[in-house]
Amino acid sequence: MKIRFLEEPVDYDGTAIHSLWAYRNFGIQGDSLLAFVGACDIPFDHMVDLEDVRAGKRIWSPKMLHFIEERFDTDLEKAVLRQRLLATVARDRLAERKVPVLRHGDDLFVGERKLSISIAAATPVSTKIHFGMNVVRAEGLDVPTEALATFGVQPKELADRVLESYAEELGGVLDARTRARGVP
Amino acid sequence: MKIRFLEEPVDYDGTAIHSLWAYRNFGIQGDSLLAFVGACDIPFDHMVDLEDVRAGKRIWSPKMLHFIEERFDTDLEKAVLRQRLLATVARDRLAERKVPVLRHGDDLFVGERKLSISIAAATPVSTKIHFGMNVVRAEGLDVPTEALATFGVQPKELADRVLESYAEELGGVLDARTRARGVP
Amino acid sequence: MKIRFLEEPVDYDGTAIHSLWAYRNFGIQGDSLLAFVGACDIPFDHMVDLEDVRAGKRIWSPKMLHFIEERFDTDLEKAVLRQRLLATVARDRLAERKVPVLRHGDDLFVGERKLSISIAAATPVSTKIHFGMNVVRAEGLDVPTEALATFGVQPKELADRVLESYAEELGGVLDARTRARGVP
Amino acid sequence: MKIRFLEEPVDYDGTAIHSLWAYRNFGIQGDSLLAFVGACDIPFDHMVDLEDVRAGKRIWSPKMLHFIEERFDTDLEKAVLRQRLLATVARDRLAERKVPVLRHGDDLFVGERKLSISIAAATPVSTKIHFGMNVVRAEGLDVPTEALATFGVQPKELADRVLESYAEELGGVLDARTRARGVP
Amino acid sequence: MKIRFLEEPVDYDGTAIHSLWAYRNFGIQGDSLLAFVGACDIPFDHMVDLEDVRAGKRIWSPKMLHFIEERFDTDLEKAVLRQRLLATVARDRLAERKVPVLRHGDDLFVGERKLSISIAAATPVSTKIHFGMNVVRAEGLDVPTEALATFGVQPKELADRVLESYAEELGGVLDARTRARGVP
Amino acid sequence: MKIRFLEEPVDYDGTAIHSLWAYRNFGIQGDSLLAFVGACDIPFDHMVDLEDVRAGKRIWSPKMLHFIEERFDTDLEKAVLRQRLLATVARDRLAERKVPVLRHGDDLFVGERKLSISIAAATPVSTKIHFGMNVVRAEGLDVPTEALATFGVQPKELADRVLESYAEELGGVLDARTRARGVP
Repeated sequence: MKIRFLEEPVDYDGTAIHSLWAYRNFGIQGDSLLAFVGACDIPFDHMVDLEDVRAGKRIWSPKMLHFIEERFDTDLEKAVLRQRLLATVARDRLAERKVPVLRHGDDLFVGERKLSISIAAATPVSTKIHFGMNVVRAEGLDVPTEALATFGVQPKELADRVLESYAEELGGVLDARTRARGVP
Repeated sequence: MKIRFLEEPVDYDGTAIHSLWAYRNFGIQGDSLLAFVGACDIPFDHMVDLEDVRAGKRIWSPKMLHFIEERFDTDLEKAVLRQRLLATVARDRLAERKVPVLRHGDDLFVGERKLSISIAAATPVSTKIHFGMNVVRAEGLDVPTEALATFGVQPKELADRVLESYAEELGGVLDARTRARGVP
Repeated sequence: MKIRFLEEPVDYDGTAIHSLWAYRNFGIQGDSLLAFVGACDIPFDHMVDLEDVRAGKRIWSPKMLHFIEERFDTDLEKAVLRQRLLATVARDRLAERKVPVLRHGDDLFVGERKLSISIAAATPVSTKIHFGMNVVRAEGLDVPTEALATFGVQPKELADRVLESYAEELGGVLDARTRARGVP
Repeated sequence: MKIRFLEEPVDYDGTAIHSLWAYRNFGIQGDSLLAFVGACDIPFDHMVDLEDVRAGKRIWSPKMLHFIEERFDTDLEKAVLRQRLLATVARDRLAERKVPVLRHGDDLFVGERKLSISIAAATPVSTKIHFGMNVVRAEGLDVPTEALATFGVQPKELADRVLESYAEELGGVLDARTRARGVP
Repeated sequence: MKIRFLEEPVDYDGTAIHSLWAYRNFGIQGDSLLAFVGACDIPFDHMVDLEDVRAGKRIWSPKMLHFIEERFDTDLEKAVLRQRLLATVARDRLAERKVPVLRHGDDLFVGERKLSISIAAATPVSTKIHFGMNVVRAEGLDVPTEALATFGVQPKELADRVLESYAEELGGVLDARTRARGVP
Repeated sequence: MKIRFLEEPVDYDGTAIHSLWAYRNFGIQGDSLLAFVGACDIPFDHMVDLEDVRAGKRIWSPKMLHFIEERFDTDLEKAVLRQRLLATVARDRLAERKVPVLRHGDDLFVGERKLSISIAAATPVSTKIHFGMNVVRAEGLDVPTEALATFGVQPKELADRVLESYAEELGGVLDARTRARGVP
């Protein structure tokens, strides 16, 4: 899979979750995980998670570190399993930086404060994951938030480590997939 | 999924990874995660991981806490993804018990000492995972090992928490799978 | 799977076949079968069955007992197989109520009179089934119709039995799926 | 799919459920449903249903009308769904012959008496169904049995109708699969 | 699968790649390969290949022999494999007519001149292939083109042979799929 | 995918078609295509193609250039499609060397003489292809054979080109799979 940190900021409005976004915009073709920094503001009609739609929730942050994964496999359950591995990888890299973060499902928390948002979705040709962590706190939401800045974590430095770790994680998954014989 | 801690000890010789083991032996039908305590000694011709076969490795432990998952889905890659979530769940529950454990792929380590073994395998009707943690250290292997006893962790108490957490984790996966609309 | 009879009437205009309709409108998440009573009138551009589109057929009934199934599996052939089981279950429950009904494919007939309509469709994240039985006869169509009222069958009472029977049927399918070993 | 009634009797010992049995023995290649008459006696180590194995049940009948389906698709859940359609088709054809038979799951009953046995199984390259109906009653089993002879039903005549109906049923499934557009 | 040469010309504007086009327009239901002759001019917003979109390429030809395949299977990788077989079949039939054509991936070339265009795409219910060969050369494009007319090849005569050969090719694929036993 | 020409001769007795053969014997893990030279003699009980078994055919050659592909995907139809691409690639590379060879399905012929044998098979964890071309003619079989030696083609030189071309072909398949958007 291809990994890339985009040096230019990109604001996330929910369209990066569409299929072939990486190829269309950056020429990055095939399975990929991209990271970038930018605001997050998702208009109601771009929302993918119907729980948010039903709750009329606002999904917003002044500045986030975003990750977008695309894999050309159409099994959404598999994407959700990978989404949790991505959250785990992010947690592990934050723990190494002394951030006292816990993972619950696909979310990261510091105490009661929510650090991240995430969604996995199916496109007609692939599955996609969005995972974002606040760089600075988002105020005025229905849940208290936490941010990388509180702990002095630099987004790009963290992103590079998460990108590498996740690629290594999925490399390990492929390795395990291809060395076990069948059993009766 | 069904979860169960088997109160009677069961020695692991590599046959519990076969299909329908839980149903055949304990009447537990369908997707399940079972835990039990027992020795581990896998004869060469029961080995599933060809890396071990090629290395002529001995897989042995005097006493382990074992987990056996079966899911009636035949996608081995998905089983490997779940295997990593199971290792993550075990790591998290150990960390809560102050065990300074790290996950690398599907293995848990305390420093250089290996705490666990694991394999995911395909059967003709399901996929299976074995995940075992030493209760006491195994000596005389090619890698130094660590054990739950070193940290005063009781196998059954840990098992119950891992069983619950994993069931909750997979419940969350299903929840995420069933609330996102498709995107273009 | 979740089953539910909606006490409030709902008119069917072909949008209930869209993905996540049960969750979006009633908070019912995951695999489900819902039943409700209401008119049926499907505008031409909501039609899913191209046979109807090609024939320029009108799909209309003054009052129907509707069933909507959603399953988060994307194999349309499997949905069509389930659709026939749903028609079979409805037939069996009607036969118990002395309605001389026969099933041809996914349709129910009393003599030459058509009692039901049905479609199975793929959404980006699930498969859906609509199955409707006339509560009163629809006149003026290209085929003579029959209705539950002719036989004094109460829609809600029938619906409750069909919902239960279908859930039991699919429970039996899962049971059969998970107790047979592989063969050579 | 190919359908065929084998004029020569064949005793069923559980090996006809293996893959490519129709091709190996009769040169019938590809998706098929075969019918034949013969005794039924399944040695313990040929049993596929672990419920029977666990119960130590005897599966035996002096004379049965057997059906063996093979489809070169490896989704066992789909085979179980088809298995229920096959039982439904058999029920419908028996009802036309005035046999007061009811279907429960994949079994047919006349009152409390069991008329049929059935299993669906996965092979490495296909899925298989065995469905058998007693031609004469089997005595001495743990459940009272019923038989076609009680109702004067001739096996071959019934078999021909079931073969045709089932092929028509699956033709209808394919038809429904290929005429519905996707929905959002 | 159904094969058909459409005697009436049809201009290709990129909509024939949509699902159920053959059924909607010609009543041809199920897996099919259709051929027809007509111009080719694909508006930018009908383009499916993002490589073309990114390059701002014009896809145009005054007259082409077009093939449209639809299969009610949703594995796009499989469609791409079939797409290459279709190109191979076309190549072989052209070689028999003394056209010195080479296949590179899904394209046919005569020396440096491009004879064909092709795309495989996923619809919500099927996969589709478009494969077109210039009947006369298209001038003014960014790549030099070749055409059937240069070699005196009659479109309909070629089409009929390609249709038959491709149906035979896929018949052979099914034959190979259904006669090999599983291996350990 | 990994490609490799094995410099040491290997006789083919039908076991190289088993899963994980490349990893077990040569440490080559994951999707791979290996080539080697050696005799071919397949004992009756190693035969995979039931057409051969039914015909009691002898599969033998004094010296062949063998190719073994393994892919960790369990769709046998897809393997058969790739098998035909492998035969096509071999044909194209032979044609470049002035061998007047034609492909029929997965076989290569020079006139009436058969140059190759091939099978695709499913293992519990992967699919496999064997494709072999006579280096010298095999006499005494039921079909006249042809050989690379007749045309002065060196096995290793040909093998290297086929290995590269096939890897490039499948690279192209992946490329096509990952650049087309979905269509309605």
